[in-house]
Amino acid sequence: MSRITAVDLFYLAMPEIRDIGDGSQDCLLVRVEAGPYVGWGECEASPLTSIASFVCPMSHSACVSVRDSVVGQRIDSVEDVRRIGDLVRAKSLDLLQADHTLSGIDIALWDLLGKRLSEPVYRLLGHERAWPKRPYASVLFGDTPAETLAKAQAIRQKGFAAAKFGWGAYGRGSVQEDADQVHAAREGLGEESRLLVDAGTVWESDLDAALARLPALESARVTWLEEPFVSGAVDAYRRLAGSCRRVRLAGGEGSHNAWMARQMIAHGGLGYIQIDAGRIGGITPATDVARDANSARVTYVNHTFTTQLALSASLQPYAGLELHELCEYPLEASPLACGLTHEKLERDDAGQIRLPEEPGLGMSINLDTVRRYLQDVTIVVNGETLYRTPAI
Amino acid sequence: MSRITAVDLFYLAMPEIRDIGDGSQDCLLVRVEAGPYVGWGECEASPLTSIASFVCPMSHSACVSVRDSVVGQRIDSVEDVRRIGDLVRAKSLDLLQADHTLSGIDIALWDLLGKRLSEPVYRLLGHERAWPKRPYASVLFGDTPAETLAKAQAIRQKGFAAAKFGWGAYGRGSVQEDADQVHAAREGLGEESRLLVDAGTVWESDLDAALARLPALESARVTWLEEPFVSGAVDAYRRLAGSCRRVRLAGGEGSHNAWMARQMIAHGGLGYIQIDAGRIGGITPATDVARDANSARVTYVNHTFTTQLALSASLQPYAGLELHELCEYPLEASPLACGLTHEKLERDDAGQIRLPEEPGLGMSINLDTVRRYLQDVTIVVNGETLYRTPAI
Repeated sequence: MSRITAVDLFYLAMPEIRDIGDGSQDCLLVRVEAGPYVGWGECEASPLTSIASFVCPMSHSACVSVRDSVVGQRIDSVEDVRRIGDLVRAKSLDLLQADHTLSGIDIALWDLLGKRLSEPVYRLLGHERAWPKRPYASVLFGDTPAETLAKAQAIRQKGFAAAKFGWGAYGRGSVQEDADQVHAAREGLGEESRLLVDAGTVWESDLDAALARLPALESARVTWLEEPFVSGAVDAYRRLAGSCRRVRLAGGEGSHNAWMARQMIAHGGLGYIQIDAGRIGGITPATDVARDANSARVTYVNHTFTTQLALSASLQPYAGLELHELCEYPLEASPLACGLTHEKLERDDAGQIRLPEEPGLGMSINLDTVRRYLQDVTIVVNGETLYRTPAI
Repeated sequence: MSRITAVDLFYLAMPEIRDIGDGSQDCLLVRVEAGPYVGWGECEASPLTSIASFVCPMSHSACVSVRDSVVGQRIDSVEDVRRIGDLVRAKSLDLLQADHTLSGIDIALWDLLGKRLSEPVYRLLGHERAWPKRPYASVLFGDTPAETLAKAQAIRQKGFAAAKFGWGAYGRGSVQEDADQVHAAREGLGEESRLLVDAGTVWESDLDAALARLPALESARVTWLEEPFVSGAVDAYRRLAGSCRRVRLAGGEGSHNAWMARQMIAHGGLGYIQIDAGRIGGITPATDVARDANSARVTYVNHTFTTQLALSASLQPYAGLELHELCEYPLEASPLACGLTHEKLERDDAGQIRLPEEPGLGMSINLDTVRRYLQDVTIVVNGETLYRTPAI
């Protein structure tokens, strides 16, 4: 029998953080140890805030630090991973950040368990095999249509059959400016590629603002419009979906538990549910959502804009769902994100991404990268050091 | 024109925090200053985690510290309060804890604005008058039915016409043990009082577990069963509601934005929606939910288990809704919570609670209490002190 002997959080960041929609500029890396076994995970979260949620003093019986529910727990089987997640959710019910913090821990627990049982994670999840996924190149819109055109042409030259453009000024300017951006992306990709557009919640819940952009999206044959609204605005999603002809709606990356994703699946009229395993509480709830989406005939897609470790984690939950064939593939990640792992999930000759068959997540951490970008953090309460950046 | 010149967070805690469901054992107090004007608010949140979310370094354009969206902003009108909240939600989209942190800031902004405009907050919210509310005494179940009986008898002697028992062992033991607790509460209160039961999400989403407790709740003529499930399990709520005869369901305190509460109102079959202004993002979204609940014929109730400052804040959003007449009234709050304000909202001769007619929230802070329970916190990142407990 093994118990969790240590959980260490490492806050990594680029020297300069730019005020753009690039989520790969920092990273909260999680290392879990159980005797001789080690697993790695990653939270898609504000690192300092998640560190605080991991070490904070208890407020009451349902607002307890994440650490209290994890360190010392038994970890022998997949049931233990689920039990630990349930414990964190119950004991940290009123600790909002806990879901983001749990995410990286859950991922690390699956990695650890896979290594210990000599199985890739997807097989521990019950998937017989990992179907290859078709990656879409995920990039930010250019500052101008000309820049977007050039980005799209470069993606086409790299052989991607699908690409997503998002954030930047999209949705903030005029309807015509947004249309110009979308058409530039379509022109650069050519007629054959799948084009996806990510509005990054820019219209919050403003149905009319979204409806005004639909004609350009339809005429550019966009496969999905992603996050026109915030995750909670489920009714606005459903009403917009009712006005779409060929365009489908995608959303859900903001889900920090499986319940939120289920609400979007049940009531949002989505074509695609996008789950970030680094936010929803890890691989465990992500896998539950993938199963539910499949039953509801909504297509599951990973949300990943950071490291290859996160990419591997994000693909495990739906590895066995053959028809859910697309995957997000970050193409402009920071040197930190690109350098975090020795392995990289490259496209094969057919242009597809395959999960590693090695145990766990199949990724090893480049400790030089960790040392290079490691932030030095100290949190002291009443003279007691609750957190100090651990040695690597 | 005024700008927000300072926002200070004070982490207060009792010397000993017990592992029970008493949320009044600590407190994150917020002070906002705009030139000569000062407002006070409170987050119902893990204090250390919310402090971190207030000062954390930027991760990307949608994961920015709460402070960045607040300090320096204009605060002249009610529209400014709404604008600041929208800004925090947009700039901290991926910073999960931000909603809890914003809550105390929004409350403090309303208090500040009320003082500056010499109006009680409820009037700034558009309520012509503040209707008195009927307080229910809110306490934890005793460890045994005999203890619960004694608690209920004491509440009756104090003249409360309604009381809520919650948490403790309720829902964790056998169906018979839970029934004994509920009947003990009814016996102690007498036949005339309204009895409310709070399951504290104990069954997560287990419909059968909840159904098994219904007969005892019906026979004890319980007005509402609160939080049988976690906030996200909206379908389970609706299905349980379909099996209730006279008992109504109550829930929603976990809502950390208005969207979550709206989902519960629209799809959960609730009789009562319970909103904690210290969690949902403050008085602003709580007021939106109160209006929506009223339209949907769901009764709005405050959720408050901490200080009198939080109690005043929690009553403002539905002060003008005459038919929404119940209010939660914490009866076992800690010395910290009881001593935080000079004023106390006591029952009048008719046994009802009336909001202060003084400007803002009508509560003044006892600085001696703040000094007595103040926790000393330091957060340092790369040699830079991002937070140090401010002087009071």
